[in-house]
Amino acid sequence: MIKAGIVGGTGYTGVELLRLLAQHDQVEVVAITSRGEAGRRLDELFPNLRGVYDLAFQEPDVELLAACDVVFFATPHNVAMQMVPELLAAGTRVVDLSADYRIRDAELWSRWYGEPHASPELLAEAVYGLPEMHRESLRSARLVACAGCYPTAIQLGLLPLLQAGVVEPRGLVASAASGASGAGRQAKVDNLLSETAGSFKAYGVSGHRHLPEIEQGLTEAAGEAVSLTFVPHLLPMVRGIHATLFARLTDRSADLQRLFEDHYRDEPFVDVLPAGVYPQTRTVKGANRCQLGISVPQDRDTVVVMSTIDNLVKGASGQALQCMNIMFGLPEKAGLAQVGLLP
Amino acid sequence: MIKAGIVGGTGYTGVELLRLLAQHDQVEVVAITSRGEAGRRLDELFPNLRGVYDLAFQEPDVELLAACDVVFFATPHNVAMQMVPELLAAGTRVVDLSADYRIRDAELWSRWYGEPHASPELLAEAVYGLPEMHRESLRSARLVACAGCYPTAIQLGLLPLLQAGVVEPRGLVASAASGASGAGRQAKVDNLLSETAGSFKAYGVSGHRHLPEIEQGLTEAAGEAVSLTFVPHLLPMVRGIHATLFARLTDRSADLQRLFEDHYRDEPFVDVLPAGVYPQTRTVKGANRCQLGISVPQDRDTVVVMSTIDNLVKGASGQALQCMNIMFGLPEKAGLAQVGLLP
Amino acid sequence: MIKAGIVGGTGYTGVELLRLLAQHDQVEVVAITSRGEAGRRLDELFPNLRGVYDLAFQEPDVELLAACDVVFFATPHNVAMQMVPELLAAGTRVVDLSADYRIRDAELWSRWYGEPHASPELLAEAVYGLPEMHRESLRSARLVACAGCYPTAIQLGLLPLLQAGVVEPRGLVASAASGASGAGRQAKVDNLLSETAGSFKAYGVSGHRHLPEIEQGLTEAAGEAVSLTFVPHLLPMVRGIHATLFARLTDRSADLQRLFEDHYRDEPFVDVLPAGVYPQTRTVKGANRCQLGISVPQDRDTVVVMSTIDNLVKGASGQALQCMNIMFGLPEKAGLAQVGLLP
Amino acid sequence: MIKAGIVGGTGYTGVELLRLLAQHDQVEVVAITSRGEAGRRLDELFPNLRGVYDLAFQEPDVELLAACDVVFFATPHNVAMQMVPELLAAGTRVVDLSADYRIRDAELWSRWYGEPHASPELLAEAVYGLPEMHRESLRSARLVACAGCYPTAIQLGLLPLLQAGVVEPRGLVASAASGASGAGRQAKVDNLLSETAGSFKAYGVSGHRHLPEIEQGLTEAAGEAVSLTFVPHLLPMVRGIHATLFARLTDRSADLQRLFEDHYRDEPFVDVLPAGVYPQTRTVKGANRCQLGISVPQDRDTVVVMSTIDNLVKGASGQALQCMNIMFGLPEKAGLAQVGLLP
Repeated sequence: MIKAGIVGGTGYTGVELLRLLAQHDQVEVVAITSRGEAGRRLDELFPNLRGVYDLAFQEPDVELLAACDVVFFATPHNVAMQMVPELLAAGTRVVDLSADYRIRDAELWSRWYGEPHASPELLAEAVYGLPEMHRESLRSARLVACAGCYPTAIQLGLLPLLQAGVVEPRGLVASAASGASGAGRQAKVDNLLSETAGSFKAYGVSGHRHLPEIEQGLTEAAGEAVSLTFVPHLLPMVRGIHATLFARLTDRSADLQRLFEDHYRDEPFVDVLPAGVYPQTRTVKGANRCQLGISVPQDRDTVVVMSTIDNLVKGASGQALQCMNIMFGLPEKAGLAQVGLLP
Repeated sequence: MIKAGIVGGTGYTGVELLRLLAQHDQVEVVAITSRGEAGRRLDELFPNLRGVYDLAFQEPDVELLAACDVVFFATPHNVAMQMVPELLAAGTRVVDLSADYRIRDAELWSRWYGEPHASPELLAEAVYGLPEMHRESLRSARLVACAGCYPTAIQLGLLPLLQAGVVEPRGLVASAASGASGAGRQAKVDNLLSETAGSFKAYGVSGHRHLPEIEQGLTEAAGEAVSLTFVPHLLPMVRGIHATLFARLTDRSADLQRLFEDHYRDEPFVDVLPAGVYPQTRTVKGANRCQLGISVPQDRDTVVVMSTIDNLVKGASGQALQCMNIMFGLPEKAGLAQVGLLP
Repeated sequence: MIKAGIVGGTGYTGVELLRLLAQHDQVEVVAITSRGEAGRRLDELFPNLRGVYDLAFQEPDVELLAACDVVFFATPHNVAMQMVPELLAAGTRVVDLSADYRIRDAELWSRWYGEPHASPELLAEAVYGLPEMHRESLRSARLVACAGCYPTAIQLGLLPLLQAGVVEPRGLVASAASGASGAGRQAKVDNLLSETAGSFKAYGVSGHRHLPEIEQGLTEAAGEAVSLTFVPHLLPMVRGIHATLFARLTDRSADLQRLFEDHYRDEPFVDVLPAGVYPQTRTVKGANRCQLGISVPQDRDTVVVMSTIDNLVKGASGQALQCMNIMFGLPEKAGLAQVGLLP
Repeated sequence: MIKAGIVGGTGYTGVELLRLLAQHDQVEVVAITSRGEAGRRLDELFPNLRGVYDLAFQEPDVELLAACDVVFFATPHNVAMQMVPELLAAGTRVVDLSADYRIRDAELWSRWYGEPHASPELLAEAVYGLPEMHRESLRSARLVACAGCYPTAIQLGLLPLLQAGVVEPRGLVASAASGASGAGRQAKVDNLLSETAGSFKAYGVSGHRHLPEIEQGLTEAAGEAVSLTFVPHLLPMVRGIHATLFARLTDRSADLQRLFEDHYRDEPFVDVLPAGVYPQTRTVKGANRCQLGISVPQDRDTVVVMSTIDNLVKGASGQALQCMNIMFGLPEKAGLAQVGLLP
């Protein structure tokens, strides 16, 4: 039985991780921490967990966490990078759901996150937690930096095209939209139901923090510099990311449907839909799954890829669990068998 | 391995039953029927099931279904009552999610459903599928008439009060609200998103078909005639029922919180919330669970009980599976371990 | 031209009042105040008002406001009662949308609002702003305490029954539901879209602050003590209140449809729907209108009245404007001609 | 007083036109037709119009309509083109909200709409109803083909760039999203709340009927052939279109903010937001307004324009009324003063 700790369990990725772990028979959650809610029962905050866990929040404490085999950070950025060095030193493995170790260049990280990196010496070691790109490295990883939500949807949609070299690597466009849970469980006027229901808007247009992470991954895949215009939007709903991706074809004769099907044939959590079928966020709700649809409108020179995930599952907690399964040599699907909730 | 068939698999209770059965390791779905979609792959209609079932819809056929150990009817009323006699005769057990066998009085049934009952001889045998009331009878049942969605929420909220005799059995009020999935997957203008989103209304006020079913159950529990004013409302959301129940106390000294906790202490799927906590539909979404909250506002003489379920789970397919588990002597929680999806 | 000031213009009732006043040709908004946003342009906060008003928020200042003919308080409670005495002394008339002057008994007010009343000497003078009850007194009022949102919907639904004496005045039940805008534009986790969308819950069950206000009005109408069990619920939508009201008939022969039609025949903003038709919140969205439907389910002894308003219009800013029109001898419909936005 | 008739008044653009016309003091609606609802009172179908119109639906009849000064077609395609020749011959002017006369090439129209055009001789005369492009021609038009909803949002967002010649006219991308009211008031399973709420998807990716209309307008504006990849998406909400537009800059030194502000300086219904501010659909809800935001992310070579309208107002009925005002020499804002409904 793997002993797991969760830092920052009061947010949406925390409660989602707990939902998934409840169906994982080889992991036991032994500690869950929160500065703000220490002492409060977990199921008081999240009544869906009543009868499932008999736990209360504790103050984050390295000693407590170091007793775990694995610690998940379900925190905003700038928390993990303070505690991870000590945990690794104690032999505890870390799956970080935050952005702290996703960008390999400490200088670039600082520019986007507005502060120096607290443990830049670990950036080279951290494995980027997108199993479809780095499964082998994950097996022995001590520290995993889970891919962000938008980066997961966008990279999974563009990887096959870039690796096959059938599109121009510059001038890519990603018009993506996320449910409000992506903004976290924080009291902000902008995220009130009255401010967001029945409305749609773009945000972070001039530059979203997920951009460098995505360009880093795509550049690696393409083997040459990639440039992307990325516009995120806020959807009036809770869960789900839909990325609509545009790229100019360099090879109009390529069989793109087959390209995608071949690329993801052995991936347990990436599902290429039949030709002519487009994904919806609702068919992956609650499931650790990315569904992809491909189209070349009017048979012209631009390919459109639609990529959907549940931002809290394949875009966060499900992916974290998938990475953990790989790290510990468990079946990759353990705890991740939930079927999407439809309708 | 229990062989199961599903009649009417194109509706929401059908796809929900399939979602739950995917996690039940002792049931195999061998047939799923639909007149309208015969020949079409199941996962074409419901992409959340891709990779989970390798099935296509078939024409409903008694021979096909009689080869099953159990057949679920996830149909509108007036389908099951035509086919059930033959299936029972063939030794197949039946779990009917529709209204056909819920009312014991064939005459009363006809009045509410506007046609004669096709197999009234089975009404006496059919066991009402609300395990919290009829668990013992379910064990040996050949034919189960699963409780309706509103009736489940309302009866579970009022049973402890009526059985204990602490409220007046006449003049009960149930103001209940359901998500739109309760109206089924049928093309009607009234159920379009543009007609229902951002709005709320009552419907069926002069008389809803669930009324006689509820009064039948409550009268049985009270041991005397019960009268209820039941007003259902349509919520601008997909899943969930919330019933707000009002009853006049005859005994103002009763400890109602303890009464409910004692009543449901051993029930695996009824959760009495702590005093002062009220349920939300979102904490039971996707879960086979009823959560209850109790209050006596201003310490006056009216008790208010709030009862929430997911109409498609504890109000339909989850309940059907729970009944089936009892019928076949399986652990009652088999296939029903899913934690509610929050947020 | 009437010079109007608005205190607390950053909330939803403030922006709604501005929307309505933009179509009132005899009122000019000359000042709008906000402590938090002083100096900021109004249309920066509310881009729907771009090109409509050329105003910026100012610090609330009695001198500034005293130069107005009328001042609207679109504030939380405990703001108006501090400033109103000075404004009245300066000859400015006041329409208070908050709760400060709604309850005539200062002691009762203190019990529900948890602090002493700052200007109890004005409680006797304040006219309760529900024109359907107090139109005559409003004509000469210096200080109007606009009815709350739930109280408007509930009182308009029960008044005809109580005044006609056809129902028991005790044991009334109001099961009401409001869109999230009723909770205001405040940063609270509970009101995030991710916490409320796709869900429904009761709140304030043990005692909501609107209860004493409603019982005060109903008691006045009935001419005897009235008792009400009031349970408010939160709807996953922005605007609208729906109240479902239950009362026991003392006279089962009364023609209730005609009773309501006669009662509201001359009211410009109360619309009794035809028999058998029930209201929806969406048909009054954006309109200063209450729509009512009446039913006696199963012809038994309980009458059900359904009452809908837009909480921000007839439940707040529209009502305030209607009161102001009466106070200043203007046509009651001035600025209130907007048709409900459907769909 | 202008006598107006409306053909097809049972859909969303019909009821919206009626809402707007209720505030237009120089137009009287004298006839409203519907094959399916003939004989039924208008306000029975649309209770928001109770007390506003005293009209019932009539069978569509050319004689009846020819007695009007202007007839609006709020119909699906293939209705107007059958009746318009007779109406024009009778001296009645026509504002067609449908697609029948939008595309000047009859052959191209047939290819996209799957049938021959019934009155191709009128295509050359019909004026495309986008006042920001064709105001002068509208003044004397007998037949106006109102711009579609997506085409309005997209063309208004791209026109300034193309006319100024600062972007490449080929390889344009429009990722746009619409509320469900754009799909009309038709009973289809795909548009049920249970199928669309809480979800997001692309549709019509391989080719949407608005594509040729948009390319026709943009090509005219650019003075050279334009090619666009257009992907529409369905939003889980009722009203609003948001178009996110991507173009490659040929002149990176251009001051795009000023370009847009200058271009639309005198337009009463196009609002260029300040630099750094992005539009939301909710701030134009119910208003005849297009709000635009401009950004060049990361100061690279791609410009992003965000364009929002209410699909039923500036995207349909408001635009129709704006065109009619111009045709009849009335103030362009008559009946269009409604402020957006926020929240």
